[in-house]
Amino acid sequence: MDLSAHIRSIPDYPKPGILFRDITTLLADARAFRRAVDELVQPFAGRRIAKVAGIEARGFILGGAVAHQLSAGFLPVRKKGKLPAETLRQTYALEYGTDEVEIHADAVAPGETVLLIDDLIATGGTAEAAITLLRRANADVVGAAFVIDLPDLGGSKRIEAMNVPVQSLVSFPGH
Amino acid sequence: MDLSAHIRSIPDYPKPGILFRDITTLLADARAFRRAVDELVQPFAGRRIAKVAGIEARGFILGGAVAHQLSAGFLPVRKKGKLPAETLRQTYALEYGTDEVEIHADAVAPGETVLLIDDLIATGGTAEAAITLLRRANADVVGAAFVIDLPDLGGSKRIEAMNVPVQSLVSFPGH
Repeated sequence: MDLSAHIRSIPDYPKPGILFRDITTLLADARAFRRAVDELVQPFAGRRIAKVAGIEARGFILGGAVAHQLSAGFLPVRKKGKLPAETLRQTYALEYGTDEVEIHADAVAPGETVLLIDDLIATGGTAEAAITLLRRANADVVGAAFVIDLPDLGGSKRIEAMNVPVQSLVSFPGH
Repeated sequence: MDLSAHIRSIPDYPKPGILFRDITTLLADARAFRRAVDELVQPFAGRRIAKVAGIEARGFILGGAVAHQLSAGFLPVRKKGKLPAETLRQTYALEYGTDEVEIHADAVAPGETVLLIDDLIATGGTAEAAITLLRRANADVVGAAFVIDLPDLGGSKRIEAMNVPVQSLVSFPGH
């Protein structure tokens, strides 16, 4: 199955000059969604994954499905101010300014194996912050998996440089 | 399994006097998460569900897992301005003011069976707006399922009055 055929490309969204890769058309197709979940976890089949960490918001959809597939627990990586209990917070750089992500301080037990999931990796700033957070909580980050990679933005190389294996399903060079 | 024992109650969040029901502790427990997914779909086992509609953001986690369990497609019900293609939009009342939810205009084929998923039903305003949207797209809304019901706020009765069967797993009277 060609998963890339299920991704819709929308020009000039969210602003002129940006070609947005929309995975809602993939998620809407039951067979493509199931295939994507199978392929996201495929390189990690030999590891026992205790928890799947999904990045808000599209990473929640895929992460929830991956956690179900692996019979693992799920932990949300959220934008700041959304989690109700004590959190760990990590700041990361955007093109202009900074942003922050959080996990609950008790979201991971020390040494627990975690697989990070998001829909897309571009510069990798959010994923890097999420992995840093998980490691601050003493998680063993087994890998990171994304439906879409924009390789020219360098995110997957940046995550691999953290010694985290990266799986991606569809690559758009030159985005 | 007593799912309510996996829900954490946080006093005075997000503001004084509110007792917040936190499902991240349930999601983090692999067996409780899997059991919740099984119970969410249980009343609808006799229906063929084409798509699961999850409400942003916690409904994405549960909805992704439920779609995987049912081998169904997934469609996101999002806060306004988050979906990249043409949308249908529905306004609903809050305690003070209004809010809006959206689905993609092509998210459902006419007559497709849809199961709505969210973590919690309180007044039911968001769920009612989501069902109205799905029906505007000519979906057949087979049911709505929530982990938590706050029955004193009347949401589940309001949804049932729309002729949509409601499943909920844990009820907190008096919230």
